[in-house]
Amino acid sequence: MKENAFIYDYNNLLTTNIGDKEGVSFDDIIKINDKITKAYSTVFDKPVANTKAILEALNKTDLNAIKNSAKSIRSRCDAFVVLGIGGSALGANAIFKALTHFRHNELPKNKRNAPRFFVEDNVDPTRLNALLDVIDLNRTVFCVVSKSGNTTETLSQFFAFRKMVEAQVGEAWKEHFVVVTDDNQGKLNRYAEQNGLERFFIPNDLGGRYSVLSPVGLLPAAVLGLNIDALVAGAKAMYDASKSQDVWENAPLLSAVLDYINYTRGKCMSVVIPYCESLDLIGDWYSQLWAESLGRNAVIDGNEFKIGQTPVKALGTSAQHSQFQLYLEGPSDKIFTFIAVQKFKNDIPLPADLNDMFGQDVTKNRNFSDLINIERVASTIALTSFNRPSETITISEVNECVLGKIFMFFILKTLFMGALLKVNPYNQPAVESIKIGVKAILKSDTKTMPLRTIEV
Amino acid sequence: MKENAFIYDYNNLLTTNIGDKEGVSFDDIIKINDKITKAYSTVFDKPVANTKAILEALNKTDLNAIKNSAKSIRSRCDAFVVLGIGGSALGANAIFKALTHFRHNELPKNKRNAPRFFVEDNVDPTRLNALLDVIDLNRTVFCVVSKSGNTTETLSQFFAFRKMVEAQVGEAWKEHFVVVTDDNQGKLNRYAEQNGLERFFIPNDLGGRYSVLSPVGLLPAAVLGLNIDALVAGAKAMYDASKSQDVWENAPLLSAVLDYINYTRGKCMSVVIPYCESLDLIGDWYSQLWAESLGRNAVIDGNEFKIGQTPVKALGTSAQHSQFQLYLEGPSDKIFTFIAVQKFKNDIPLPADLNDMFGQDVTKNRNFSDLINIERVASTIALTSFNRPSETITISEVNECVLGKIFMFFILKTLFMGALLKVNPYNQPAVESIKIGVKAILKSDTKTMPLRTIEV
Repeated sequence: MKENAFIYDYNNLLTTNIGDKEGVSFDDIIKINDKITKAYSTVFDKPVANTKAILEALNKTDLNAIKNSAKSIRSRCDAFVVLGIGGSALGANAIFKALTHFRHNELPKNKRNAPRFFVEDNVDPTRLNALLDVIDLNRTVFCVVSKSGNTTETLSQFFAFRKMVEAQVGEAWKEHFVVVTDDNQGKLNRYAEQNGLERFFIPNDLGGRYSVLSPVGLLPAAVLGLNIDALVAGAKAMYDASKSQDVWENAPLLSAVLDYINYTRGKCMSVVIPYCESLDLIGDWYSQLWAESLGRNAVIDGNEFKIGQTPVKALGTSAQHSQFQLYLEGPSDKIFTFIAVQKFKNDIPLPADLNDMFGQDVTKNRNFSDLINIERVASTIALTSFNRPSETITISEVNECVLGKIFMFFILKTLFMGALLKVNPYNQPAVESIKIGVKAILKSDTKTMPLRTIEV
Repeated sequence: MKENAFIYDYNNLLTTNIGDKEGVSFDDIIKINDKITKAYSTVFDKPVANTKAILEALNKTDLNAIKNSAKSIRSRCDAFVVLGIGGSALGANAIFKALTHFRHNELPKNKRNAPRFFVEDNVDPTRLNALLDVIDLNRTVFCVVSKSGNTTETLSQFFAFRKMVEAQVGEAWKEHFVVVTDDNQGKLNRYAEQNGLERFFIPNDLGGRYSVLSPVGLLPAAVLGLNIDALVAGAKAMYDASKSQDVWENAPLLSAVLDYINYTRGKCMSVVIPYCESLDLIGDWYSQLWAESLGRNAVIDGNEFKIGQTPVKALGTSAQHSQFQLYLEGPSDKIFTFIAVQKFKNDIPLPADLNDMFGQDVTKNRNFSDLINIERVASTIALTSFNRPSETITISEVNECVLGKIFMFFILKTLFMGALLKVNPYNQPAVESIKIGVKAILKSDTKTMPLRTIEV
């Protein structure tokens, strides 16, 4: 396999592998050729401003400015804390887990080449206090990320930490905060401007959940000492390869088409299963992208449809001992996306003591990376034998370039799926109702009490 | 609210709150009264051996033996590593996250009153090597957990670490391993016996995913310095309260009944959402319990049904910014279980800088714990306004006793659900097909190659 390779394998979605009832045939695809052409066109020929912004972020983000800022931040902190939620947190967290040492924060300082790293994406007070127990505010930089600049959770954290830092270092608190937001009239931007905080801007038309390849994901990546040029280059390579109008050569388009056909046949869940611990949080990032972009009360040709496939996160091999009983024998309501890694960063030989359990030498020339891949193959074979549809993305290794390809694959797949489903993948109208509720309760003194309950 | 309280609130599942179409009426429940009586009887009047074993583990586990062993382990290690997968890992991990400091492993030694703690539940070589970078094998104790004693993943880890420890400390390697397994002829038990390793036994009839309140979960808990008496007492309190034959007084039974009615109406997913970071891994533990116990190719009255509700893990408030768009507007195919916490371990005042965004003083006398609870209430109100069914478990606080209640609530709910669905909740027949596949591939030289693929 070539360096930085990304291989999309769809064989286990086809009738040849899982039979006529569950599989997709070439005819099934040819039949919806017009839809496919139209979906392609929606994304590439007639892109809306939100779609254009995705490519523009790749081409126009000033990577040198990010690298320079990161260099300065690295020199003045031992801990870097991202304050954000949803699209402002999940991408940075996925990058962190994928590309740094698996126990980065627990390594002694002389074995780390980057500050300790935290993504605080909740308002749980016990978690926030726990953070304070392990960082030195004098040596901490906070990165406050909010697209709108008005996110209650993020601003609450920001103002709370700002006060604490100021109590320790006075006016110099301003050097402990960098802001990533829209260049608009949101509270965060205005506040940052008034106080002279360092700012990076998210392009106006770039949706939060599509923003991992803007300063939202790239500044944290650069602070971690990662190669952000390669991250962007990988994403561009996937973007360029996906301009092929031949669906058989276009991985995100073909994957969207196969998923769309499965969705119309009742596969209401999309399960992503990396067989690689460091890719675990890709599942969380993808889950937001897929759920928030495609979960819709859609009005199509005058009729109302409640649509959207539910993303389900799993991890191999652990899920075999937790979820696969349901996946194999339960309702056939899921489509599976495996992510396989050919070469792990390092390895451990399989111990020979295992052999007597198998009655022969199974460990010779084999490492743990072989075991995890054998487990994956066995799982896909089992799913296939139960006629359950699965696709597999195999990557040569986990590095910046390949991760960029993975991000862009799922972003484009989401856009194509949105086009096939005829929904706008950029807004999130229903979430407003919660925000309105939060504000209403905050403004009131209401205490809600349960009515009928059982107490134990 | 009383100390150690557990309150089950089902109002948002009823027709009164979410309307006739989505809600359950009292009549709906009365109509299946015979089924309910039978389900109760299956669990309490005519329990099979596997069910009896759950109560026996509570009553007969020698807690003093566990405490004594834990005391000795604590004195001889700085790191305690559980090697296990599935039911041998998820309970211990849930206990760890719920009841210790949120950044336990990152605290300096003098601020921790327990060894650092790791649950290694995968065979990813990069993750295993990362562990080696942050522990000192001379001061590490491994706890090898496998019900069958033949789990390939766990034995691979065990033998690999055993070799490394022996290389450092020679014959004394035996003091670095403690084994939790079935007292049977599995490889782990035999090996432990031959080498004189300390052993704890899992009762023969106790299924792995039901074993958190046996040495599987209790030994790690005791090593962490937690109160295992209270953990068991909480579980017993829930068990005893659930013996009520009145469904309206029996929280796990009522919850199972309401979920069963929802399931028969097409709610194919069960979403658990704690609004509390420390309860996050309860979702993983529950996901295995629910999926593996109820995902079945069931033969009922001669007909074959593929059944099982898919567990989906979410976390408040983060999920509001990631999943709720789908939850509110997408297909109504889910039932939601919120877990609310009244009193957090500690708190932080909401910063007054927030007030100008709201145009009034909303932060006075309010803390982050109020914010997270307000967000939860706003989310349940939003779901209810979209007629989406939800139930809420409110606990007074996160402690050992309450956690014991939570474990037993979900265990009993699963058993009642199994009885209502007429399935055996104890086996996992389909998983065997993967294990057979793994062994077959390990024994062969086969390399599987993708056929039709797209490479980028």
